[in-house]
Amino acid sequence: MIKPIEDVVEALSGLPTIGKKSAWRLALFMLERPQEELDRLSKAISALKAGIVLCKQCFNYSTSEICDVCASPVRNTALICVVEKPMDVFAFEKTGAYRGLYHVLGGVLSPINGVTVDKLRIAELKKRVETGRVEELILGLGSSAEAETTCLYCARLFAGTGFKITRLARGVPAGIELEYVDQITLDHALHERTNIAYGD
Amino acid sequence: MIKPIEDVVEALSGLPTIGKKSAWRLALFMLERPQEELDRLSKAISALKAGIVLCKQCFNYSTSEICDVCASPVRNTALICVVEKPMDVFAFEKTGAYRGLYHVLGGVLSPINGVTVDKLRIAELKKRVETGRVEELILGLGSSAEAETTCLYCARLFAGTGFKITRLARGVPAGIELEYVDQITLDHALHERTNIAYGD
Repeated sequence: MIKPIEDVVEALSGLPTIGKKSAWRLALFMLERPQEELDRLSKAISALKAGIVLCKQCFNYSTSEICDVCASPVRNTALICVVEKPMDVFAFEKTGAYRGLYHVLGGVLSPINGVTVDKLRIAELKKRVETGRVEELILGLGSSAEAETTCLYCARLFAGTGFKITRLARGVPAGIELEYVDQITLDHALHERTNIAYGD
Repeated sequence: MIKPIEDVVEALSGLPTIGKKSAWRLALFMLERPQEELDRLSKAISALKAGIVLCKQCFNYSTSEICDVCASPVRNTALICVVEKPMDVFAFEKTGAYRGLYHVLGGVLSPINGVTVDKLRIAELKKRVETGRVEELILGLGSSAEAETTCLYCARLFAGTGFKITRLARGVPAGIELEYVDQITLDHALHERTNIAYGD
């Protein structure tokens, strides 16, 4: 009906989590904002890809050949956390608790969808582990069946290579009532329970 | 950490319903899309305001002085639906059931927030009603206290002017189990119940 609005609605609807209705709402909201603000958003979007490459070491997004994390002098280079995608790196970084490096696989094994070992950055991880001094490889993968498979694959691939291989703890998430926790999670939480005190 | 991504995240976070986390997700999604797609979105956003004005008659968004609805030869010009904002016009238009014209007030009365009669397009509505041949004024306002006030104000303002003044039916929304309907709504639905048959 109103071309400029519909153009924005159509372009926005292509983004994940933004349906037709939200797109309309966003477009009408933008209409009320100053032009400078829209220009800032518009420029940021069109310039997004230009300055970004993949870090040659960890394959996370970076503005230089080697990303800030890999290049940092205060990071523990003997510790590598293997993750599925860049978003996961940002999640770990936000905790501020991890001081090692990362390795972005670029997915998880899913032969049914054509994601085989050669499609992931597993060869690169192998090379990285063989040439560097690694003390621990943390498999920071999710809990889907595919992530579990990838986790086991990596564990077997590097077993006996002389460094520790760990995976993320599985258990009860923070701030959740036990009655809402699913059985598989509770089963893991029970099996992987940790000592907090010894009885006399 | 990565400037081009953070620029997009920051600009997106300023939009309603998009939090920091969704903004990150959207930015990382965009990174994987072809540049042409991002350029299309970027251009649509920066060109959004340029071509849009308010219709001189109904004050809805338009690409010309008089909007498509007001200029349409098949619309019933004796029927005016008074709405709060442009989004509401789109909602009515989507039903495809309304064939009259609109009048966008630009808000609802809320003296506490500084929205008094002179801040809305009520004088314009009065003039429009006085100069045109109006048979019915539909008060298509919401159900907030402010919308109710605006509805009553308009009803009194135009009472005795020789045309019908109606308001939207209040009642049970579609597809909802009665047990989930709130008391006020149910009270309205009961009071404004409609005949469907006569007993013998």
